[in-house]
Amino acid sequence: MPSESVFLRPIGTVRNGVTEGGGVRWEKLVSSVEVDERYLPALQGIEAFSHIIVLFHFDRLALEAPTLQIRPEGRPEMPLVGLFATRSPRRPNPVGLTVVELLERKENVLTVRGLDALDGTPVLDLKPYLPRGDQVQPSRLPEWLRQLWAAHDEEWDHG
Amino acid sequence: MPSESVFLRPIGTVRNGVTEGGGVRWEKLVSSVEVDERYLPALQGIEAFSHIIVLFHFDRLALEAPTLQIRPEGRPEMPLVGLFATRSPRRPNPVGLTVVELLERKENVLTVRGLDALDGTPVLDLKPYLPRGDQVQPSRLPEWLRQLWAAHDEEWDHG
Repeated sequence: MPSESVFLRPIGTVRNGVTEGGGVRWEKLVSSVEVDERYLPALQGIEAFSHIIVLFHFDRLALEAPTLQIRPEGRPEMPLVGLFATRSPRRPNPVGLTVVELLERKENVLTVRGLDALDGTPVLDLKPYLPRGDQVQPSRLPEWLRQLWAAHDEEWDHG
Repeated sequence: MPSESVFLRPIGTVRNGVTEGGGVRWEKLVSSVEVDERYLPALQGIEAFSHIIVLFHFDRLALEAPTLQIRPEGRPEMPLVGLFATRSPRRPNPVGLTVVELLERKENVLTVRGLDALDGTPVLDLKPYLPRGDQVQPSRLPEWLRQLWAAHDEEWDHG
């Protein structure tokens, strides 16, 4: 098993004014991704994609130990499942991944919709969303996930 | 701009016997992902998903400097585009991301199809593929990408 550490350095920062995640409708939220100016040439042509993938560092969890099993979203009616079966931030390597809509690029600043990251979050990578490969039709999903989404739909409709 | 490094530690290793990437039909290739045994509890329930996302370290590029612009796949007919508009491994943070089909889990070993990583590649994270969020219908893609895919189709059909 490899034990060598991998060192990453942020390439940019999320700006959206959101300092607490509770109750935020992330999928509608518009954020800026301020990319370090030295990487401006690396952004050339990214605006030709309507969707990109943002990798970011869950940096607010530094003091929380990672856990191996959780109840999704901490809901007591959910089963206890392995961390790798969830998108929980409390993972061995605290890297988040979100597909976002790329609304605009102005120089080194991207405007995106749907990024579920707090203001100031370090961004580690940006990748184009490629339908060949990234867009699949899953044949199996766990039942708890369907129940979780049904609960979200109900809370948002009536919230 | 944040400058703090992010330290990641591999959680597992790719096993597929592939030591050179040239000419490999990755999307058909079956690989094993051997997860460190200490993370066995974190895999519970992942087999309920037919597709997962694998994050891995492009560890064979340690001696190559990252570049900011490339011609996709090094093809001379392709335009020079920014690194973040491509999935090239030579990125500031050398992390790869691939959606794979999860065929089976036996204890801490996952069998997956479609992982484009060489034998021995360190795996950094596993995430479930969630149609809500991960499955989007892009409205814009660059013309060079369509040309690249057409070239792939032609080479594979006649190759």
